[in-house]
Amino acid sequence: MEIESYVTGFADGEGCFTVSFSKRAKLKTGIEVRPSFSISQNRKSKAVLEEIQKYFGCGFVRFSRGDQTYKYEVRSVSELKQKILPHFEKYPLKTVKKQDFIIFKEIVSLVSENKHRSSNYLKDIIEKSYSMNGSGKRKYKKEELLKLLAR
Amino acid sequence: MEIESYVTGFADGEGCFTVSFSKRAKLKTGIEVRPSFSISQNRKSKAVLEEIQKYFGCGFVRFSRGDQTYKYEVRSVSELKQKILPHFEKYPLKTVKKQDFIIFKEIVSLVSENKHRSSNYLKDIIEKSYSMNGSGKRKYKKEELLKLLAR
Repeated sequence: MEIESYVTGFADGEGCFTVSFSKRAKLKTGIEVRPSFSISQNRKSKAVLEEIQKYFGCGFVRFSRGDQTYKYEVRSVSELKQKILPHFEKYPLKTVKKQDFIIFKEIVSLVSENKHRSSNYLKDIIEKSYSMNGSGKRKYKKEELLKLLAR
Repeated sequence: MEIESYVTGFADGEGCFTVSFSKRAKLKTGIEVRPSFSISQNRKSKAVLEEIQKYFGCGFVRFSRGDQTYKYEVRSVSELKQKILPHFEKYPLKTVKKQDFIIFKEIVSLVSENKHRSSNYLKDIIEKSYSMNGSGKRKYKKEELLKLLAR
């Protein structure tokens, strides 16, 4: 077994590239941007998440009480850039999730260059994030965030 | 990318080992046993199913109107035995699905030896099948099938 290809196959089914947003009055733009890569499993499959964590050498496995699952998650922008993105560039996804990854990669690059601190780039980041498939439940509607930027 | 390991990773998330049953008055036991391996995806990810079909060299990709998904499926007992089982023995699953695979393997072996034609073995096959995780919606309750055998 080649762990690299296994990880891509598993992530193609179970992985999630997400960019979430929070309102933060102290920030110049008023909005915090948080990209993350995660994989959730029920408690019986916790071991595979720990193996993936070990493989990537970053992120955390934690228990989510809400849906009674374990979640492997990488939130650090530098680790996303240095470990997660290069993996999926070298071992590319094959499902429609690949489109999410391409957008995610653009956003992580922008954030790692601090571009998200300017309202113009942040607007673009918000638009891109909300076009992603795997974004799940959203705390805010896109329009609500964009309105905050327009002030 | 090593396709073998990718396939195991993808199946660990998205694959399904199932054994389903139908009532067939013409059979001595009154019950038909149908083991199958399948992977479903939405229409945008049809290509990965075709790649997996090509890799295994068996099974079919078909559109399921009910849930608007594409499904790669292998139902042939000889192909399950000759192509699907050896793959997952050489490239083992890592999640709780591995437990389903172990039971599935036992059942496919019994069926390929025609053991399912005897009521005693068939009872065992039914019990094992209903203990599997990924068995999904069942047409019959286990008790209903077992009652049929006891006649």
